[in-house]
Amino acid sequence: MTAASEMKPESVSLHPLGTAPASVPELLCIFGTGDLGRSLGLRLLQSGYRVVYGSRRPDSCGPLPQGAQVMSHAEAAQTASLIFICVHREHYEFLETIAQHLNGKVLVDLSNNLKKNIYPEANAAYLQRLVPGAAVVKGLNTLSAWALQNGLLAGKQVYLCGNSAEAKQAVAEMATKLGLAVSDRGSLSAARELEDFPLRLFPEWRLPLRVAFGLMAFFFFYLLIRDVIYAYVEQGKDISYRIMVSLANKVFPIVSLIMLSLCYLPGVIAAFLQLYRGTKYRRFPDWLDRWMLCRKQMGLVALGLAFLHAIYTFIIPIRYAVRHKLISRVVDEIDNKTTPFDFDNTEAWGTDSFYVLGILGFFLYVLLGLTSLPSVGGTLSWREFSFIQSKLGHLTLSVCTAHGYIYGWNKFLRPSTYKWYTPPGYMLCLIVPSVVLVLKVLLLLPCVDRTLTRIRQGWERTQPREEKVMNKSTNL
Amino acid sequence: MTAASEMKPESVSLHPLGTAPASVPELLCIFGTGDLGRSLGLRLLQSGYRVVYGSRRPDSCGPLPQGAQVMSHAEAAQTASLIFICVHREHYEFLETIAQHLNGKVLVDLSNNLKKNIYPEANAAYLQRLVPGAAVVKGLNTLSAWALQNGLLAGKQVYLCGNSAEAKQAVAEMATKLGLAVSDRGSLSAARELEDFPLRLFPEWRLPLRVAFGLMAFFFFYLLIRDVIYAYVEQGKDISYRIMVSLANKVFPIVSLIMLSLCYLPGVIAAFLQLYRGTKYRRFPDWLDRWMLCRKQMGLVALGLAFLHAIYTFIIPIRYAVRHKLISRVVDEIDNKTTPFDFDNTEAWGTDSFYVLGILGFFLYVLLGLTSLPSVGGTLSWREFSFIQSKLGHLTLSVCTAHGYIYGWNKFLRPSTYKWYTPPGYMLCLIVPSVVLVLKVLLLLPCVDRTLTRIRQGWERTQPREEKVMNKSTNL
Amino acid sequence: MTAASEMKPESVSLHPLGTAPASVPELLCIFGTGDLGRSLGLRLLQSGYRVVYGSRRPDSCGPLPQGAQVMSHAEAAQTASLIFICVHREHYEFLETIAQHLNGKVLVDLSNNLKKNIYPEANAAYLQRLVPGAAVVKGLNTLSAWALQNGLLAGKQVYLCGNSAEAKQAVAEMATKLGLAVSDRGSLSAARELEDFPLRLFPEWRLPLRVAFGLMAFFFFYLLIRDVIYAYVEQGKDISYRIMVSLANKVFPIVSLIMLSLCYLPGVIAAFLQLYRGTKYRRFPDWLDRWMLCRKQMGLVALGLAFLHAIYTFIIPIRYAVRHKLISRVVDEIDNKTTPFDFDNTEAWGTDSFYVLGILGFFLYVLLGLTSLPSVGGTLSWREFSFIQSKLGHLTLSVCTAHGYIYGWNKFLRPSTYKWYTPPGYMLCLIVPSVVLVLKVLLLLPCVDRTLTRIRQGWERTQPREEKVMNKSTNL
Repeated sequence: MTAASEMKPESVSLHPLGTAPASVPELLCIFGTGDLGRSLGLRLLQSGYRVVYGSRRPDSCGPLPQGAQVMSHAEAAQTASLIFICVHREHYEFLETIAQHLNGKVLVDLSNNLKKNIYPEANAAYLQRLVPGAAVVKGLNTLSAWALQNGLLAGKQVYLCGNSAEAKQAVAEMATKLGLAVSDRGSLSAARELEDFPLRLFPEWRLPLRVAFGLMAFFFFYLLIRDVIYAYVEQGKDISYRIMVSLANKVFPIVSLIMLSLCYLPGVIAAFLQLYRGTKYRRFPDWLDRWMLCRKQMGLVALGLAFLHAIYTFIIPIRYAVRHKLISRVVDEIDNKTTPFDFDNTEAWGTDSFYVLGILGFFLYVLLGLTSLPSVGGTLSWREFSFIQSKLGHLTLSVCTAHGYIYGWNKFLRPSTYKWYTPPGYMLCLIVPSVVLVLKVLLLLPCVDRTLTRIRQGWERTQPREEKVMNKSTNL
Repeated sequence: MTAASEMKPESVSLHPLGTAPASVPELLCIFGTGDLGRSLGLRLLQSGYRVVYGSRRPDSCGPLPQGAQVMSHAEAAQTASLIFICVHREHYEFLETIAQHLNGKVLVDLSNNLKKNIYPEANAAYLQRLVPGAAVVKGLNTLSAWALQNGLLAGKQVYLCGNSAEAKQAVAEMATKLGLAVSDRGSLSAARELEDFPLRLFPEWRLPLRVAFGLMAFFFFYLLIRDVIYAYVEQGKDISYRIMVSLANKVFPIVSLIMLSLCYLPGVIAAFLQLYRGTKYRRFPDWLDRWMLCRKQMGLVALGLAFLHAIYTFIIPIRYAVRHKLISRVVDEIDNKTTPFDFDNTEAWGTDSFYVLGILGFFLYVLLGLTSLPSVGGTLSWREFSFIQSKLGHLTLSVCTAHGYIYGWNKFLRPSTYKWYTPPGYMLCLIVPSVVLVLKVLLLLPCVDRTLTRIRQGWERTQPREEKVMNKSTNL
Repeated sequence: MTAASEMKPESVSLHPLGTAPASVPELLCIFGTGDLGRSLGLRLLQSGYRVVYGSRRPDSCGPLPQGAQVMSHAEAAQTASLIFICVHREHYEFLETIAQHLNGKVLVDLSNNLKKNIYPEANAAYLQRLVPGAAVVKGLNTLSAWALQNGLLAGKQVYLCGNSAEAKQAVAEMATKLGLAVSDRGSLSAARELEDFPLRLFPEWRLPLRVAFGLMAFFFFYLLIRDVIYAYVEQGKDISYRIMVSLANKVFPIVSLIMLSLCYLPGVIAAFLQLYRGTKYRRFPDWLDRWMLCRKQMGLVALGLAFLHAIYTFIIPIRYAVRHKLISRVVDEIDNKTTPFDFDNTEAWGTDSFYVLGILGFFLYVLLGLTSLPSVGGTLSWREFSFIQSKLGHLTLSVCTAHGYIYGWNKFLRPSTYKWYTPPGYMLCLIVPSVVLVLKVLLLLPCVDRTLTRIRQGWERTQPREEKVMNKSTNL
């Protein structure tokens, strides 16, 4: 009866101009004329809705989007059946006084709190308690006034929850019309969880950053002892000035290389697990799942450290200590004339190869980082994405590992390398990448690769699975 | 009978396959088969419309998108009620000749001009005058053929204006279906404004670029006088070669630091204004509003200059003058043997700290710049965005300011620093950042911070405001 | 009467809460519960559909999106008229056994193959053969499970083909609702082409990369002969260590500059072709079209090489060979005292200008690269985009060409430059950019520019064309 009725022949005469069955736009109501209320209204108007604001002082509520009306709360509530509550939770009490006008209406609670756990119940639950006759839907609260104003909504994911399926459906249709992707999170009891979303502060970055800082602290103190304290104790020299640049420029590349290999380790572990189990249908352990989900962030942390390593390297020659050493060396050269100062071709090849591998590794690092930009990654086909993340990623790891090996090429067997019987930092940092690369090479052996491919296509070793479902790249 | 009939019960039998009430797609007409006409038609076809082209030479109008028909203008006009005019304004006259076929139709004028103010009236107003019986809607003219072809429309803002609300509604619905966000700019008298939109050339970048170039010119001449001309006049030395690199490498970081602090100054001023007024409901003065709107561009200009500063610094040691100086220094050292050439630990610590602060500052700068990319910023939650722009931003400013202070650490009290009684450039550039940081620290004092937070939540000092509206981060 | 009618009392009772005519969401069916099936279901649920999974083992098919039902294949098929087949082609046989339940249904074949040409017929054709009573639509197979899960769909282009127009229309409507842009590729015979799409590996990068690698190989061997082999043969010196850094740091900038000029050469050729033909309505030759389509990729390859050149340059002073040369030079200086070691002001100006032009060129290069990011380019107006790509692009080319000219400023006329009668590499690389710049200057002459502008607005020299269509920037 409904949607059809707007199409019936009689109605056509009213729209001689519109090519579409140009319906009168739907009317929505917004309580609250603050930043969020205004931005939301603007965006609703742009999406073809009519908007009425409810305000306690309809005559003096500041500039509102062109085309919107403003009324008292009670009046505005009667015009529409969907009302956005863009008011701070602290001021919800007034809604109780107009509760009779809100019966049967859908109230969308967009509010957020400044901190977690400052109220015993969720804002939306509190609202439902104040206006029991209305259908409260919590949602859209992850949208900022800034994003609404700047039209950054297309395809953005928003969350809804509420006890009335019809109310949620109405809100979801409105949100879809705004270009948002709606995810239903169930009943109103999920409201607290939704209200915590905008307070999240880089949750997926926490683990990678903790690992990075832990490793950096460890290597900093390890190198501090081996370099600065060793020189002070054994040789009585104060080389503490090296902490600022030389030491940092060892810690950054070491941790960067380890973080990069930690990006690719879980994929390798997952492959061996699938080989061992002979099926891809059993879930990975939780720790592996969590690890795999933060690979992108691990890679970006590694890129950041590599960037710092590059800049630290570029400024080496303008440092006071380096210039001083260079000048001293020349002066010694002339004064003593003991050491013959010949050009060592092997040394030139070795150091240049070292630099070239570092540069190429950094270049590949940056390429990987660029494709992780949402707007770049979104334009890639599946095979292109997997080519970059897997092939290019392992190539980057190989090049950077080779960069590390060349650094120590002729020092591995020299006893003086092992001060106080400890290996130097770059040796420690080569362990994880080497393990990852060796395991990856094992996986690339034809016989292993064939079995793995079959497993990933749904084959099972123990019993044939009836339904073989489609699998698109489980290795990122 | 048309669109309406597809909804009648009988018609359902025609769609045994469609799960949706699969309507016959709506038909739209495009006049003009140029780049824009073709790209628009392609996009309309992709969005599920049928398309008919109107052409003077239907038989020889070049390649058109697959699935589109082509007819004479008069024929095409009769098939659809919405017609896109993708023809240059200079060729509008022919429309007058088929005006009788255009009565009651919606004409969408997508035309743009090559320059501003070349015609006395807007293209759309001229079109309306030629075809008074049609409803002209100006709009979508900010879309380029390039963007249409490459599918870069999602969420893009387009503008409409026209005298018929129904006609605008029909166009708006079509645009929404294409994924565009529509902004209604009122009656057809706004057409001239809309026609000037595609001719805008970085309007929001003008103020920041002007400020940057003004500051760069000032500091360039200031340093030219203090460095090059002073050396020539007082010591008779020609060090003019320094203009290219040394001088530029002073101007860039100086202006970069000032621009960065000018990003954060308006936020601090706004906070003090709110504290002074005791309310957030009074509008800021116009100059402050305009300043706040170009903070992002100011920051990006500052980042560009910091980038130049970094590269200028990296190439220092390969410069002829620097190598020459190094060699001369060694030769002097050996010839004279007057100055003892000892290693100065404090100097090593000082210069290394200087470099490290510069590197960290640049790293933070780049992070800030990355989050200003639309596709990256769009993925951040409100708290994450505010964390980066406020906390990380002020940290960047602090680190870069410290970088500047260390540069002059032991020179502030030396009389030789003040050539011709003028302070060196880096001292001048530290003034604004220092003021911003001191004011920011004042705002972070618990008592001030508490009052400001309350004001930003809607509290007013003078009279209690009834309606406390939601406030989401006014400090960027 | 219209939209009003949907509001009329009787209908309201059906939707006491929803403001929209809240229809019961449409139900779609998915066969297959793998990664793709689950991600697709999640996204469909988020877009307001109901979802039923068909599975052979409905009781043990792993975690499915909340809100979806799961049944046997035959049961699920009866609930919906549109069925997504998210199963590997190897397991299609089971569909034959339930073919009677699939009569009259739309089957969307999303399958891809691991390699090209492993089956004699397309997956979709095979499916149609198995279930002749259903309407098979091939499509959406470019969507990855990853993109579906991460909501990266907005505005993304997908392709459809199939023999039933009605079935395609139903799928197209569903896809439009998901925010996708649909392109109809015709009948089911196009299925093979569509199935090859996800297997494409950077097709538009192939030509630029081939050109770049070809040029790099040529210049590498050319310089190897001129530098290393010449020194070995004529002077008996082994300078092979230079291959790693010095030689590469000549090859990269040379190829980068040539690639950059190859970006702008086709635009210039096209302009002269239009001038010669006196019309813009004749198609360009195929080779020119293909060349123009990969200009962006050519520019990005050039930027990558310029980036490598920059880093190679930054590490020059820390190389062993460079330090050794510096020290040797000082030692020679003191030992021999033959050459007077004076400061050469011209040399200082020349080398500094060389570096500054290089830095500015690289800065402009990076700016151009940034605007080629989809999310940045999408925010530019047409005039801004054309300003950056044309004006800024040619400025970059001019600055980089000047950088090359200054490098050889006083060496052009020196006979020792022409070892074995061959010109040095930088001379060769200046040819193409110089030609492009000279031709561009010719095009900017007022008389030529005026004619070209008229041609691009639709004017024709030979015969007046009736229909002058809109032209938006044919020069990138």
